[in-house]
Amino acid sequence: MKEKGNKIRNKQEGTNELLNFLKGFPMLTEEEMQLIVEDTSIQSFKKGTILLHEGQIATECYLVLKGCVREYYIVDGEEKSTAFYTEGQPVASFTSASTHTPSKHYLECTEECILTVSDQDLEKEMIAKIPRLESIIRKEVEKNSGKERDDFTRFITSSPEDRYLFLLENRPALLSRIPQHQIASYIGVKPESLSRIRKRMVEKMKKNQSNP
Amino acid sequence: MKEKGNKIRNKQEGTNELLNFLKGFPMLTEEEMQLIVEDTSIQSFKKGTILLHEGQIATECYLVLKGCVREYYIVDGEEKSTAFYTEGQPVASFTSASTHTPSKHYLECTEECILTVSDQDLEKEMIAKIPRLESIIRKEVEKNSGKERDDFTRFITSSPEDRYLFLLENRPALLSRIPQHQIASYIGVKPESLSRIRKRMVEKMKKNQSNP
Repeated sequence: MKEKGNKIRNKQEGTNELLNFLKGFPMLTEEEMQLIVEDTSIQSFKKGTILLHEGQIATECYLVLKGCVREYYIVDGEEKSTAFYTEGQPVASFTSASTHTPSKHYLECTEECILTVSDQDLEKEMIAKIPRLESIIRKEVEKNSGKERDDFTRFITSSPEDRYLFLLENRPALLSRIPQHQIASYIGVKPESLSRIRKRMVEKMKKNQSNP
Repeated sequence: MKEKGNKIRNKQEGTNELLNFLKGFPMLTEEEMQLIVEDTSIQSFKKGTILLHEGQIATECYLVLKGCVREYYIVDGEEKSTAFYTEGQPVASFTSASTHTPSKHYLECTEECILTVSDQDLEKEMIAKIPRLESIIRKEVEKNSGKERDDFTRFITSSPEDRYLFLLENRPALLSRIPQHQIASYIGVKPESLSRIRKRMVEKMKKNQSNP
């Protein structure tokens, strides 16, 4: 496994976050959770760390325990942000990893991050110890695949203004954690257009307040 | 299992298609393939059949052996096409199925279709007979999740013209099988704009032919 991250100083911090995440799977016993925590590599990454470069073959996948990982592409010399993964979200590059082809995107820690880091060998080891983990992981992959599909169809079927409104309602913290030009790129507009969208929204809100 | 489809008249037809699909998994033995084929429900569906309505909870998933299944949303009274699944592609509604929530989309057979139809019970039965199927299905779900993610990021990072070009290069048959207004909706433009895109492309091709 490549070492881009560092062993975390306060092991307990990441461990608590991982345990909290695992509690979302009530089918796991306390013992199994402990086993998973013991075997999991938890690492810290400095802000700005590139976890995966365009052209590299992805071998690792991550779970964000703290911080934010941005996925982006470089198109005609310009960065296009396509995902922001925050606490509790897995980060995988399935196409590159499963077909052993160079990744087309970058993964960057936009903040100081604490991540679990795993690869196929580690996964195999864990499944050997807890066989039903295979089925649990599959259901999780399906659920996440469904969520990503929802993101996609929402993008196709909505306007940039709707997309911004969705973030405002569903991931409000993201809007203060991520630079505006990256949010603009993510909802498919230029930074100037995002400013106009925000201005229009503030005006609408003011209007609604004065004419309730 | 709801019966929207019919048992196919010529069972061999669907069976051959399914066997061809399974040959893409070299880790399966001949015996296992036969077992899967025997247990799989293969059904035919008339053109226009709605496999899943908005508001219904998805319980089935499909593999297209012949034909085309369209996923669409109704937004402000208008249909927005978000996917076209053709031969060899699985059709799943993971969010609705895994969270038991009403589907937001429709699934429609845009042609006479032959599909495998499965649900959780059937899947469990098959995995009980061939345990390593669990791991094979998971890898397949991951690969498909990667492909859908690629579709999404391509959509975010490209223009409608690029999206049309991608279909022309990668799924040319689709363009003659699907009505133009549905293709337009899928690449995110009005039908008039698609006509203009196609006109511009033909003009470019003509220009390249006269100035090679």
